[in-house]
Parts: sequence; structure tokens; C-alpha cells
Amino acid sequence: MSSTITHAPKGLEGIVATNSSICYIDGDQGVLAYRGIDIHELADNSNFEETCYLLWNGRLPKKDELKQVHEQLAAERKLDPAIIELLRTAPKSALPMDVLRTAVSALSFYDPEEKLNDHAANVKKAIRLTSQIAMIVAAYDRLRSGKDVVKPDPSLSHAANFLWMLTGSKPSQTAERAFDIALILHADHELNASTFAARVTAATLSDMHSAVTAAIGALKGPLHGGANEAVFRILEAIDKSGSDAVDYVKGMIAQKKKIPGFGHRVYHTEDPRATHLRKMSHDLCQSSGQQKWYEMSHKIEEFVKAEKKLNANVDFYSASTYHTLGIKIDLFTPIFAVSRVSGWTAHVIEQLDDNRLIRPRAEYIGPAYPQHWVALNQR
Amino acid sequence: MSSTITHAPKGLEGIVATNSSICYIDGDQGVLAYRGIDIHELADNSNFEETCYLLWNGRLPKKDELKQVHEQLAAERKLDPAIIELLRTAPKSALPMDVLRTAVSALSFYDPEEKLNDHAANVKKAIRLTSQIAMIVAAYDRLRSGKDVVKPDPSLSHAANFLWMLTGSKPSQTAERAFDIALILHADHELNASTFAARVTAATLSDMHSAVTAAIGALKGPLHGGANEAVFRILEAIDKSGSDAVDYVKGMIAQKKKIPGFGHRVYHTEDPRATHLRKMSHDLCQSSGQQKWYEMSHKIEEFVKAEKKLNANVDFYSASTYHTLGIKIDLFTPIFAVSRVSGWTAHVIEQLDDNRLIRPRAEYIGPAYPQHWVALNQR
Repeated sequence: MSSTITHAPKGLEGIVATNSSICYIDGDQGVLAYRGIDIHELADNSNFEETCYLLWNGRLPKKDELKQVHEQLAAERKLDPAIIELLRTAPKSALPMDVLRTAVSALSFYDPEEKLNDHAANVKKAIRLTSQIAMIVAAYDRLRSGKDVVKPDPSLSHAANFLWMLTGSKPSQTAERAFDIALILHADHELNASTFAARVTAATLSDMHSAVTAAIGALKGPLHGGANEAVFRILEAIDKSGSDAVDYVKGMIAQKKKIPGFGHRVYHTEDPRATHLRKMSHDLCQSSGQQKWYEMSHKIEEFVKAEKKLNANVDFYSASTYHTLGIKIDLFTPIFAVSRVSGWTAHVIEQLDDNRLIRPRAEYIGPAYPQHWVALNQR
Repeated sequence: MSSTITHAPKGLEGIVATNSSICYIDGDQGVLAYRGIDIHELADNSNFEETCYLLWNGRLPKKDELKQVHEQLAAERKLDPAIIELLRTAPKSALPMDVLRTAVSALSFYDPEEKLNDHAANVKKAIRLTSQIAMIVAAYDRLRSGKDVVKPDPSLSHAANFLWMLTGSKPSQTAERAFDIALILHADHELNASTFAARVTAATLSDMHSAVTAAIGALKGPLHGGANEAVFRILEAIDKSGSDAVDYVKGMIAQKKKIPGFGHRVYHTEDPRATHLRKMSHDLCQSSGQQKWYEMSHKIEEFVKAEKKLNANVDFYSASTYHTLGIKIDLFTPIFAVSRVSGWTAHVIEQLDDNRLIRPRAEYIGPAYPQHWVALNQR
């Protein structure tokens, strides 16, 4: 191996793998910004459609442009009947993230621009996939529950249409706004593992569907998007067993179990998304008379912070937030994908605008070269 | 961003992303070895089953172990009827790599160990996926041609069974051996882009199917596995137009087109796999009376080497080799996956044996923080 090779820390920690104009993070100050605009300003003032436009185009849309992105997202609320059939026939035992990954991969069969990979085609695919992934998650949950797929309503916002297609009822303004904010907060996070998987895939000049399919597979893992599901399973276990939340977590620590929803490689202070989600969880738990989930969560947060010096991350309060919105536990991670597809697609577009194959090296530590092939009777 | 951050060259060139005991490459000497054994020794003496065992277990199998891996691969030659149905109903316009990616993703629904992610379960999944991916590629080609799926034959080697299921005829010894060698040569190549995509995906503690699905998506790209298909499309265009091969390539260079099948980030001398594939292409073209493909390829190789100082890589002579084996052009990249699944799964197993989330950073070069959200009527 040549001497110009640099051995990176494990997991590429602290290695800048690319330049990017999409997401600014200051891990010491707890800052997250999309295209330079702080996530707090966006959560307070923006909506998911506008945030998508910002991620894809690098600036806030003007009035006509915002109207257009609403219309485009609404117009793409359609799925080929074969995709519905795939969702309908997936075995009941299949994991929702496996179903989502497979359905998104299959969307490529029906994409009118599957053979195009230029900037303009990929912006269209970004819009299409954002609409389709939300529909797939909602339609799949209906079908596995023996219910009909709800027809999309083009007059609704992306957030409201998702809740409508999931539940069959028009959401309250509170629920729509809460879900919209959750979508904004989860939309992008620089080179997180799923986005990095998407960029590695796209950089071979493969295509958008391959990249987003790879990203869904990566998001599934409990060290990434799978953590919000793991958080709620703990809250539920505490509730069912009647244990004290702190005692339960102490028990996990004694068994050397990792507490999901805490710590983040990039933030050395509070994850700014956690700040919003804590407040949302508090308000939603209160207004729905389910204070126990917030109270339990808050106790755990205080204890883990004091005991392990770990801050709650984006996954910790999204668990109780989603639960109070009436969303099933095993949809928490698919819902992360409903939002993050906006960031994945923005990163793929950026990658392809100035592409180079992403191909690092490994340092060989196996049996010294040369070993030799030995005939079977001499082994 | 903290000062401990290192800015890697574009595409992570020359960055060691992990230690690995699987594949040794010396790019200056043109050496490729699996677990320390030179690829030339393996191509001359080994077979794909033995090579799989070597990649998965770190050493050559003893007699009983080799018998067992043959039996295990043969026993896993089965696909759920729903997978066959997926292949049968994929639209004719779908790209074979998109179909393969989707079918492999769907295999997770039917995997008896889908919810397990430990070493033992992943070795079983490696065996299963190796058998299933070969079957999917063969069965899909039969179905799209309106033919029946050929029943697997457990008495045949992996290479022979694939050709049998693809063509419906038992392959000649020459064809079986040639395909077996091609499988050995393509089985692994350290942190190539698809393997890296698999490791990034697996490192979130997602699962084997997610990782292999991601890898297939990455392999599809013309800067990676897609290159062998691109090579044959050029040979075919030269043949159809009756052009001189060198003139044709000169024309491509004049149009600043990249010549697929040449150059490799890691090798500064001949790709050792190209050495074997050149000979195989020569012999197979001769024995099948299709010398023109080899002659054309050889002229192009000489010219590109002289003119651009680029060596032929693994993809260049695999194109004419596969064509003389009677394999359709759009199956060349799927066939790469038939082999490389052995390496992908070995790398996923290695990653999970000593895992850390792969999460690099990006350097933010967008609008300076803080930008501000502005009301719609003020934009």
C-alpha cells in the first residue's frame, strides 16, 4: 500500500468525505441549519413542502414556486397498482422497513424517467419519491390491517395527506402541525449513515431509486433510524411492567445495554432537534391526556444525562410524540424515511452535480501474502 | 467544525476506511489475493464453492467442509413462489439490475432468520443469498423470454447449475470451467463501491438483506459493475457499423467520452483479473469461432494503452468472455452480482464482528450560517 494512504479513525469519525452546501452542523454549539437557515426558524415558521424546496434548490421558494411544489407533490400522489399489490401480498411477518425498501426499489419499474440520471430528471424523481414513500407507508399500514387504501386528497398538505391516508380521518390542526414540524426536523442531517449510503451508491452513476433504496436499508438499523422504535419499546415495557422508569434504565445499564435515543457522534451538546421534540412531546402528551409517556421520558432523560453524561437525541422524544399522534411503533422508522427522503434526494442531486466514485481502501490485516492454495488431500 | 477533522481527498481516494482480513491488493505490483491466496492460484486450482468458503471463513475448507458447502448451496436453491411471481410480473421495460435489487430486497420477507443478525445467522444468509441471487438472475431471464423456470439440479456445481437454469442445457466442461473462473475472479475486491455501500448499511446494525440490496444498487452504476455491459455495447456498435475498432475509439476520445473497461483507481499496473479474462476471452472466442470479439478487444486495448496509458480492467475482457458464453448483454452486470455476493456477505460478516457506525462528516460550503427564514411576501 502506498505511503500516501491515510488511516481514518474507525467508522470514518471526523473524516470529511465531501463538501456539501445542504446542511450546516455545529456540534459544539448544537446548531443544525438547512442551507444556512437554523432548524429552529424552520420549525417555527416553515412547512415540509417549503423545506423540501429549500433542500432541493438551495433557497426558499417564492410564492409561485411554493404553490408549484405543493401542486407537484400532490400530482405525484399515485402508485402503480402493482405496488399496491406488492404491499397487499407482503407476508404479515415482514418488517415494515423491509416492505418499504422493496416497494421503493420496485417503484423504479414504473418511473417514467428511470433511464435518465441528469439533474432535471432527478429533481422530478425527488418530488415523486417524496410523495410515493409517504403513500407507501400509509397504504401498507391500511392493507396489513385489512383496511382499504385511502384515496389521496390533493387539497391537503403533505403532512395532512399522510395522516389522512394513514387514519382515514382528516387530522386536527394540532396533529397536522405537529407532524409537519416532525417532518421538517427529520428532513436532513448532513452525512448521516443512510445519506452516506445513498451518496456512495449514486456515485457509481447508478440511479436515484438505487440510492434511496440503499438509504432505507441503512436507516433501518437500530444505530440509526431504528432507534426511535427501540425507545418506545422501552417506554412500553416500563409501562406494562409498572416499573419505575429510572430503575428500569438502571437495570439496562447494569446489563451493559445501550440506552437508545441518547448520544450522538456529531453533537457535544443538546441535539437541537431534541429541544423541539421534547416540547412537542410535552404538549401532545398533555393535550391527549397521555402525560405518562412524557413524564417517563423526562425522568429517563434527566437520569441518563446525570449518570452517563449523554444528551437525548432526535430519536428520544420522537418516540412519545409519534405515539400520541396515534402512529404504531413499527411505523416510527418508516416515518423517518417519509421525511428524510427529502434530504437523501437533495444529497444524491448534489453528489451527481460534481461526482467522483466513492471508493476508499481497507488496510489488510489477514494472513500475510502470499499464502498458497493447497490440494484438498493435503489440508 | 472541530480542528481534529481531516478533509479526505474527493471520493475518499487513498483513505483507509477500515481494517479487513478478506482481500489483499497491491496496486503497484498488480496483486489481488483472497485471505492471502493469490487470485492466479485460485483461478488455476479452485472453484467458486471453495472460494466462497475461503471468503466467509478465512481459510480453505477441508474435504468434509467443502462437501458441506456444496450441499448447503445446493439445498438453498429454492425461491418462494412470490419471488418467482415478482420476476414474472416485472414490466418488460424494467432494467434487470432494478429487478434483481427488488427481488433480493423481497427475499427478506421469506428469510427464516430475517430477525437475527448474529454471525451464525449471517453465514447462513450468505449461503442462502449466494444460491438465491444466481437463481433469480437465471429465472428472470427465462421468464422475460416467455420460457419456464428450469428446476435447479443439486448434483451440479454452482457455476454449472447457473448455466443450466439460464439455458436449459447442461453446459460443456469448457463453459462450466470458464464461468467458474469468472465467478472466482469477481468474488471480492476489498472496499469497492458496492462492498463499501454494503458495509455502510450493515454498520447501522441493519441486516444482511439491506446491505446486499444496497450493494446491488451501487454495482449497477457504469463507474462500477455496469462497465462490462458498456464495453460490449461498444464492441457491438463497432461490429454493426463495420468501423475500424481503433477509429471508433479515437472518435469516442475526440468526443471526450470515457472508454469503459479501462483504468482502475487501485491498480497502477495491469489488473490481475484482466490477465485471466484476456486469456479466457481469447480461448473462448477461438473455440466458438467468434474471434472477431477478441481481436477487436485486443486492438482497442493496445491503442488505449499506448494513447491514454490506461490498462484494461476486470470489465474489459469479461464483456467478450460472457458474450461467447451465450449470455445476454444486460445480464453481464447481474452476473457480476452472482459472484460478488460472496464478497459482499463476507464483508458484512466482518463488519458486524467488530462494528462501528460509519458516519463521516461533510464540510459545509453553502450559504453562511445564519441565513434567515423570510416571510413569503418578502421574498
